[in-house]
Amino acid sequence: MDKLMSEIIRLGNSRRWSDVVIYGGIARWVEVAEDLSGDARSQITQVLEQINTTLVQIGSDNARLLEVLIFLADFRDAEVLNELWDNWVQPGNLPIRACVQAGLGAGCRVEILVSAAAASPPNP
Amino acid sequence: MDKLMSEIIRLGNSRRWSDVVIYGGIARWVEVAEDLSGDARSQITQVLEQINTTLVQIGSDNARLLEVLIFLADFRDAEVLNELWDNWVQPGNLPIRACVQAGLGAGCRVEILVSAAAASPPNP
Amino acid sequence: MDKLMSEIIRLGNSRRWSDVVIYGGIARWVEVAEDLSGDARSQITQVLEQINTTLVQIGSDNARLLEVLIFLADFRDAEVLNELWDNWVQPGNLPIRACVQAGLGAGCRVEILVSAAAASPPNP
Repeated sequence: MDKLMSEIIRLGNSRRWSDVVIYGGIARWVEVAEDLSGDARSQITQVLEQINTTLVQIGSDNARLLEVLIFLADFRDAEVLNELWDNWVQPGNLPIRACVQAGLGAGCRVEILVSAAAASPPNP
Repeated sequence: MDKLMSEIIRLGNSRRWSDVVIYGGIARWVEVAEDLSGDARSQITQVLEQINTTLVQIGSDNARLLEVLIFLADFRDAEVLNELWDNWVQPGNLPIRACVQAGLGAGCRVEILVSAAAASPPNP
Repeated sequence: MDKLMSEIIRLGNSRRWSDVVIYGGIARWVEVAEDLSGDARSQITQVLEQINTTLVQIGSDNARLLEVLIFLADFRDAEVLNELWDNWVQPGNLPIRACVQAGLGAGCRVEILVSAAAASPPNP
């Protein structure tokens, strides 16, 4: 196995969690909007853009998404989620997706747990 | 690595998500009952049967389940879940299982995120 | 691939779930506090200690954690979670972490879904 498969690669410099963990060829990460002052549309837009940024960072792209687990603070935001989601995903290369309502941190409307195939060695 | 390990295999033809994604030898998918008009017992029964169908589709079986994350709309349904679950799983080949209450889509009583070892190349 | 990568290893003797499932070099498991009579601080302390015990059992350690998905019965317990978490994790070797509020079983304040790289063959 090459390094991408056998080593744990961690990105980010938080003291509480890694931004991304890559192991066995799979990258996993959690996204919440960087700016929590906006409404659900703003936060979901941010989170999807942040996922794109992370995909570039790990040498992958959104045709290589595997699994997306979405927590919404209010399930009524599923409609706007779906609108933004449908314009974001790549038809023919869709991840699996679960979406549930759960309690999130103060002001947070959406939290997404993502996994993607890490295509090539990342540039930390 | 053979194809099962190195390629992303996606099943299903929804425009919003894949029914199943297989990568690195592991299949992942999300199940909700196809008929959401029934009660929790009906929906859980359906979902477990649907998981069986998917396992066959990917060339696996329920002795190769790895992880099951269950979202119930009402935790009081855990009792019927456990009754049906105990008759469904294979003793000696049990997955790990988490079960929590979360808000689900309209009429949906249960949503399950599953992973299983994909034993052999699937027949898409 | 060696046995750690290609076989499904299951630990525990419950009739309902495995305590740990190892496949493809990754161990996955779910922890709730063994003693549910205590408050959130007690239960979170127990769960983190139980994770340590499981890590030893599978020949890993908490520098090899990959992903931690935390369900709190009450999000107000996030503060004590973070206090205990910060003293538990290994700086520089942090997992990704998601934390949401969800309904849990009677008396249960915290349920954690964990994955870690299984460094060496476990001793079942």
